[in-house]
Amino acid sequence: MDSLSVPMVRAVLCLSFGLFHLVMTQSVLAQTLAIVGGTVIDGTGATPIATGIVLIDNGRISAVGRADEIAVPDDVLRVDAKGKYVIPGLMDANVHLGLSHNLSLELLVRYENQFDEIILEAAQMALKEGVTTVFDTWGPLPQLQSVRDDINAGRSVGSRIFLAGNIIGLDGIFAGGWLQPGAEQQVSAAFRDRMNQRYEQEVGTELLAMRPDEIQSAIAAYIGKGVAFLKYSGDTQRLVGSSMISTLYFSPRQQAAIVEAGHHAGLPVQAHIASEEAIQVAIDVGLDIVTHGDLAVPPKTYSRATIQRLADSGTAVSVLPFTERRLEAFEEFAEANSQQIVWIPLYRAMRENRRAMIELGVKILLSTDAHLRNAQLPDLIPIPWEIDAVDPDRAIGEAHFNALVALEEDGMDLMEVLKSATSNISEAYRVDDELGTLESGKVADLLILDRNPLQSARNYRSIHMVIKDGRIIDRTELPVSAIINPAN
Amino acid sequence: MDSLSVPMVRAVLCLSFGLFHLVMTQSVLAQTLAIVGGTVIDGTGATPIATGIVLIDNGRISAVGRADEIAVPDDVLRVDAKGKYVIPGLMDANVHLGLSHNLSLELLVRYENQFDEIILEAAQMALKEGVTTVFDTWGPLPQLQSVRDDINAGRSVGSRIFLAGNIIGLDGIFAGGWLQPGAEQQVSAAFRDRMNQRYEQEVGTELLAMRPDEIQSAIAAYIGKGVAFLKYSGDTQRLVGSSMISTLYFSPRQQAAIVEAGHHAGLPVQAHIASEEAIQVAIDVGLDIVTHGDLAVPPKTYSRATIQRLADSGTAVSVLPFTERRLEAFEEFAEANSQQIVWIPLYRAMRENRRAMIELGVKILLSTDAHLRNAQLPDLIPIPWEIDAVDPDRAIGEAHFNALVALEEDGMDLMEVLKSATSNISEAYRVDDELGTLESGKVADLLILDRNPLQSARNYRSIHMVIKDGRIIDRTELPVSAIINPAN
Amino acid sequence: MDSLSVPMVRAVLCLSFGLFHLVMTQSVLAQTLAIVGGTVIDGTGATPIATGIVLIDNGRISAVGRADEIAVPDDVLRVDAKGKYVIPGLMDANVHLGLSHNLSLELLVRYENQFDEIILEAAQMALKEGVTTVFDTWGPLPQLQSVRDDINAGRSVGSRIFLAGNIIGLDGIFAGGWLQPGAEQQVSAAFRDRMNQRYEQEVGTELLAMRPDEIQSAIAAYIGKGVAFLKYSGDTQRLVGSSMISTLYFSPRQQAAIVEAGHHAGLPVQAHIASEEAIQVAIDVGLDIVTHGDLAVPPKTYSRATIQRLADSGTAVSVLPFTERRLEAFEEFAEANSQQIVWIPLYRAMRENRRAMIELGVKILLSTDAHLRNAQLPDLIPIPWEIDAVDPDRAIGEAHFNALVALEEDGMDLMEVLKSATSNISEAYRVDDELGTLESGKVADLLILDRNPLQSARNYRSIHMVIKDGRIIDRTELPVSAIINPAN
Amino acid sequence: MDSLSVPMVRAVLCLSFGLFHLVMTQSVLAQTLAIVGGTVIDGTGATPIATGIVLIDNGRISAVGRADEIAVPDDVLRVDAKGKYVIPGLMDANVHLGLSHNLSLELLVRYENQFDEIILEAAQMALKEGVTTVFDTWGPLPQLQSVRDDINAGRSVGSRIFLAGNIIGLDGIFAGGWLQPGAEQQVSAAFRDRMNQRYEQEVGTELLAMRPDEIQSAIAAYIGKGVAFLKYSGDTQRLVGSSMISTLYFSPRQQAAIVEAGHHAGLPVQAHIASEEAIQVAIDVGLDIVTHGDLAVPPKTYSRATIQRLADSGTAVSVLPFTERRLEAFEEFAEANSQQIVWIPLYRAMRENRRAMIELGVKILLSTDAHLRNAQLPDLIPIPWEIDAVDPDRAIGEAHFNALVALEEDGMDLMEVLKSATSNISEAYRVDDELGTLESGKVADLLILDRNPLQSARNYRSIHMVIKDGRIIDRTELPVSAIINPAN
Repeated sequence: MDSLSVPMVRAVLCLSFGLFHLVMTQSVLAQTLAIVGGTVIDGTGATPIATGIVLIDNGRISAVGRADEIAVPDDVLRVDAKGKYVIPGLMDANVHLGLSHNLSLELLVRYENQFDEIILEAAQMALKEGVTTVFDTWGPLPQLQSVRDDINAGRSVGSRIFLAGNIIGLDGIFAGGWLQPGAEQQVSAAFRDRMNQRYEQEVGTELLAMRPDEIQSAIAAYIGKGVAFLKYSGDTQRLVGSSMISTLYFSPRQQAAIVEAGHHAGLPVQAHIASEEAIQVAIDVGLDIVTHGDLAVPPKTYSRATIQRLADSGTAVSVLPFTERRLEAFEEFAEANSQQIVWIPLYRAMRENRRAMIELGVKILLSTDAHLRNAQLPDLIPIPWEIDAVDPDRAIGEAHFNALVALEEDGMDLMEVLKSATSNISEAYRVDDELGTLESGKVADLLILDRNPLQSARNYRSIHMVIKDGRIIDRTELPVSAIINPAN
Repeated sequence: MDSLSVPMVRAVLCLSFGLFHLVMTQSVLAQTLAIVGGTVIDGTGATPIATGIVLIDNGRISAVGRADEIAVPDDVLRVDAKGKYVIPGLMDANVHLGLSHNLSLELLVRYENQFDEIILEAAQMALKEGVTTVFDTWGPLPQLQSVRDDINAGRSVGSRIFLAGNIIGLDGIFAGGWLQPGAEQQVSAAFRDRMNQRYEQEVGTELLAMRPDEIQSAIAAYIGKGVAFLKYSGDTQRLVGSSMISTLYFSPRQQAAIVEAGHHAGLPVQAHIASEEAIQVAIDVGLDIVTHGDLAVPPKTYSRATIQRLADSGTAVSVLPFTERRLEAFEEFAEANSQQIVWIPLYRAMRENRRAMIELGVKILLSTDAHLRNAQLPDLIPIPWEIDAVDPDRAIGEAHFNALVALEEDGMDLMEVLKSATSNISEAYRVDDELGTLESGKVADLLILDRNPLQSARNYRSIHMVIKDGRIIDRTELPVSAIINPAN
Repeated sequence: MDSLSVPMVRAVLCLSFGLFHLVMTQSVLAQTLAIVGGTVIDGTGATPIATGIVLIDNGRISAVGRADEIAVPDDVLRVDAKGKYVIPGLMDANVHLGLSHNLSLELLVRYENQFDEIILEAAQMALKEGVTTVFDTWGPLPQLQSVRDDINAGRSVGSRIFLAGNIIGLDGIFAGGWLQPGAEQQVSAAFRDRMNQRYEQEVGTELLAMRPDEIQSAIAAYIGKGVAFLKYSGDTQRLVGSSMISTLYFSPRQQAAIVEAGHHAGLPVQAHIASEEAIQVAIDVGLDIVTHGDLAVPPKTYSRATIQRLADSGTAVSVLPFTERRLEAFEEFAEANSQQIVWIPLYRAMRENRRAMIELGVKILLSTDAHLRNAQLPDLIPIPWEIDAVDPDRAIGEAHFNALVALEEDGMDLMEVLKSATSNISEAYRVDDELGTLESGKVADLLILDRNPLQSARNYRSIHMVIKDGRIIDRTELPVSAIINPAN
Repeated sequence: MDSLSVPMVRAVLCLSFGLFHLVMTQSVLAQTLAIVGGTVIDGTGATPIATGIVLIDNGRISAVGRADEIAVPDDVLRVDAKGKYVIPGLMDANVHLGLSHNLSLELLVRYENQFDEIILEAAQMALKEGVTTVFDTWGPLPQLQSVRDDINAGRSVGSRIFLAGNIIGLDGIFAGGWLQPGAEQQVSAAFRDRMNQRYEQEVGTELLAMRPDEIQSAIAAYIGKGVAFLKYSGDTQRLVGSSMISTLYFSPRQQAAIVEAGHHAGLPVQAHIASEEAIQVAIDVGLDIVTHGDLAVPPKTYSRATIQRLADSGTAVSVLPFTERRLEAFEEFAEANSQQIVWIPLYRAMRENRRAMIELGVKILLSTDAHLRNAQLPDLIPIPWEIDAVDPDRAIGEAHFNALVALEEDGMDLMEVLKSATSNISEAYRVDDELGTLESGKVADLLILDRNPLQSARNYRSIHMVIKDGRIIDRTELPVSAIINPAN
């Protein structure tokens, strides 16, 4: 400690006691930083380093290793991590930062010009709770891009955003059942068209009637708008009479064309899928990621042959885990009210599918479909709020904690749980040269936890510090401004 | 002219050539003003004064008379009205300045915090076209009051507003069919309740189940909020199967209680009425004004006995006149499209009723139900825009001109036409000690027309100058800011 | 007994043991009949005759009196009523025999040509349980008339029917909310018009726009179709937003015209009423019967002044009583399911109104709105079947028993309870010269009960024998054929 | 002629003059029959026989050839066809005899127990106009089977029926958009379930979630019910917002399983298809018949590569041809009413697709989707009746005449037109060993036309005689009884 100047000493002391207040608006622009003395779990699956050091220089990790092997330069900010656990920043493979699941016509009209602020609010809720990178798999493209750019340029603080824009094949926000029936009749054509365009981005239903070569041209134009990855609608769910069905959306040869267009541009491709048939097609066409691959509509346990094929092909599967307590909440509610709850068979089938995937070695990505939630907001999935409050699986900033616990409950090894939220995701999304592990040269996104995440997934909640791009995040300030949950 | 100082000379010259530009933001704060040389038609029905003078001092008329009888002081602003016609400012007995007939859910959400601006826009559209006083017979009370107060205090320029607030007996904006069906399902309960309250003001449907004494207490409390007159729902129209029916809303003894409560507080009382039965009840209970008394739903010509009773009782009737050309537009459209147009029998019956009322001497008040209109706005009465554009009878700032012509077409004497838009209204609304005629002591609201309104009602359009509260209005500046029709 | 021939003895014995089987198809065509030895409660309110005799000759009562005062002729069929109670046949002031509250589009289409059979089924369910006369206050006129005529002519057995046909002022069956929303879109215009006409009978909504003299002509024409009494819509209930309101339907002067037209033809007039205002108007116009006068929508306790006026004016009020157990069933259900049950405040207000009417001496008529019910049928008032099964108040053949008990629970003297179901009704409907009491010259409609109805209203269920038109009804055979409840 | 007995001579004379009246109720039970002297066009595409003879014995053709080559036995009924044209009985590859496109809830309820009669009415309308065999591609299985069996057994006269029952994958009649929205809310659950079951037959949406082996078991069970061929839903159309889209219904591997199950049982398999993607899959899986393969939703001209693949693979395509006059009627209506008519682009694309298929040599099957139609009936495709009356393409007994003309207009060689309605269909449906041509050993279904169908397709209307199963049909008696079009 004697090598530290007085101000440094104070800084470290304050950090240790959680009293540190950043003088700068958003983050500490530390040129160099040393995380000293903690157990380093690097996200690669390697044995943790008991007393390790992580050196950060100019936003990147410059060295990782045992304390006795790495020299800490004099002029760095030292962060004392003794007794703590240093892990890569968490990732969420599937979120919706913008108005999405939580939409009502009222919100759409009122916040037409505040989409950016809402997206930023969500990105800050995620970052505050340790999710340093999110993959937004459906949302308003221009506004998501704007917020992404602000964050990347340091103009705003928030989780790092990769975005897909529209789910290829879907029409705009008034067309897809996102709003209450009849919403279109309440607004002017001009407003409807403006809002549709934000979401549709010229890759709507018109692609369904296209031949493969036509589709590839459309996708190439779409990629030119600046998306980070592609997501298309692999199958689609709808109610026919009283039966909920899944049917393929794009035909297999159309899906192959989309995947090829994405790969040609170097982008990973995923698809919304909730049926075994669509999973089979996905593997056939070389899809990178099956979105919520545990979800089967109608509820069904997938065959082991299909799951084995997923594992063998190396196809990544993002899943939507929930805790046992949450399922129990549904079951208790159903019993108390003598009602059939549609989520119960669905959740049960999802759990079976997840467990089989874990057992057979499918590459799992933690995901949540998370978005800003509160009791007054509507939700696409209208679960009674009192039930939904039990281990929420869709509330951004909270959902990932429960999902991590759920994966442990599903029988996943705790080292694999960590990878499912870090390196598995960076690999599947093809950003593993930059993100996802604590390795020299990688971007310095990392968490310091008070308790060991390899002992219990519940320990992910024990966040001591969040560092993104080599900067210590002032979690107390987040979200900086809030529209949807202003009380926070 | 030699008595005028040089600046005065320039002012008068400029006015004569219509080039006058006010230096002050809103109006000329002339302490004293003399309208010199015009034909003065004072609104009382008296013979016009061929070469008259109207002296205005401190916002009020200080003298009216023949030019050779009245001395014009030296230090006044002289307005040369030679060859022109000086009449009282026009009044409209029934307008809706706020979001009302022109409502959609989209507008309601978007402009929740801009109601005041919209109301002011409407009040300025009216004033610009010579309507110096409007009676708002249904709208959001707090916002109407706010704008009224701003205008009265000189903080804003606009037509003088008298307001009823809610139509007593109606629930809020989400309850009454003002919005598209299903609107309520698109918004949060909090928003719905906020908006309902703006309009409902504790005098909603709950009054229907009250006994007379209970009603009187409720009305007294409502009057305490500061309304200028009362309007209640006398009857109500609705579709039963494919039949449109009118039935009484409040019972006769409840209506009597409302009227008594209003009169006890010195307020005039009117009622929405569209059936002969309700007219009969109105006369029984001593109502002051029958709102749109020419309207019969389903379309029906009222009996001459009933109309004679209206005349004998002195009950005023506000009417909704339309021109022959407008009715013809409907008829032509119907013929070209082989469609039945519901408005045709309705308009025909209204015309018959109006003509009989004129013939039998009922006291007629010009009214329009006018509100801000444009082609993109919805309207409670969804007439195809191309038809509605023919002599519009509901567009604020325009409707009154057509209504005045229509009354002439209906056979009304032109002096009576003027009274129907001035002194008849001020008398019926019990503000004739202050407004409605050009008489000494009255508020100085007046118009100068280029052409004689006693030769043709079309001449009301020839506005040369609008003076309100003794101040010359700069019509070119109105509306000062516009939300609904920003192009204006 | 020695005066009886052997067959007679056997008959009487069999009757005593309830084993009697009629040889004739429907009833015993006894020319003369003597009810001997029972306690005779004649329905006038007079002290019961402890050991009485009722002599019946050719369908009419020829003598009533003490056994020691009246000689029983030799050649009559003697019915031993010793230890039993002889009362007038019960009446129900308000039933709906045809498809009415129990309508669905499916039933309407399927049974288009079987309305008569359904009406007869209902009339037989009523008669079987002691209701010898019903007043059908709304239903399909031609079919009701046909069944009425068949019964009166002895071609069918069933309760005696008096009928109103349409509720004056209401349009046909597709217009009034009797069917599920959207029903009209499922059928052809031809079918819709046929069905509407059955119910509407040219006294629909068009009367609302008529002047009194026009109304009287329309009513006169309607009376010419052969109705027994008139019923019009005095007020009307509807949902405005989330508020249920009652408003007058016909104006007071229109109501007066209807009443006058009815009285001019010698017919009693009643009106559907569910508000205090409409009750006041009813008294003003001289209405004979207020239909379900205990019902207040929205739920409200009527003022004692209004109820006193009802009593003073002698206006009869039909009520819809329900038992305490039934209200408790609603309350328990609400508590168990933490739901607001709209019927609870309604039932509570109805009970209060009924009790005040009983206390203040209003002339009460027992009524039920009864119609054919089963668990599979829809109902206009969709009470969950498990609750509705507790002391059903609308199931024909059952509802009147519960209503009688309910009146006792409401504090009505048991002699008054009997009158409310007999002489009060015959008086209010102006058929008391023929029906309603056990008096010489009256039609011989009577019940023999095993237990004393003046000890408990529950004893009305102890029916030993039903006699209508002087004929013993074979209750075991009823209903002869059944469509709606074929299992019976 | 001298070999004929006197009665025979009379019969032949009568036939020649069209005065022949059959003595037997339905048909002449001629054991042997000789069609003599006409031009025989046998449906194989062979050169017509100018003066030919067709011998019929016991319902089958025993010889066909030149008059100078074939001896006519003495004791046969000779039919003089001199100057006329003898062709195989026509076939329609796609009809709906039962309540289907023409459904309303009203009809469903009313005719619940008369489905058989309606189906027979349709089968008789077809036979009357020369369609001796129909393929019913969707309808109520039990009732279709019953009528089919009655006809086959000679208990009824009517077109020969081959039936598919349900379209595999579709739920019952209340689920699929066949009825107006909201129909289910108008009926009891019991009725809904009964009607659904008639159509659904255990091969509904539940198959969508099955794996291939599960599907094959379900199909095998279904085949066991006695269907003649299979039809499944290859793709499905629906409105998303304002876009009409087609997406695959069963996945390719599921489709392969269905086709395999059908072929395993010796049944031909077809699929409802309206998109190019589904056509591609159909060819991949070895489908026998693409139903309405000219139909593209949204309207689109298929690529020539896809159409060439159809031709090369030998996949048959049933089409829905319409005349130029019909398309013009739509265009004129659209112009007169300045409306966009959805059918216009659809019809135009269909015509382009049909023409390309004809040009490239696809095996075309004439089809109509025909069903009983009249102006009062609803229709799934709600074309204004006045337009629909121009060369109707869906009215059974009429549609095929217009379709034949339309194929000629589309450029099809007239010999191919005949084959499209005879041998092409029998081959595609695998019944060509029995039906479709005039060859020795085949079932004796044939028409005698007055005019040459190889000169103009309009000549198919000139029906002189219909023979089915070797029996002359009394066309004047058909339909024997009629429910839907009783006036016929």
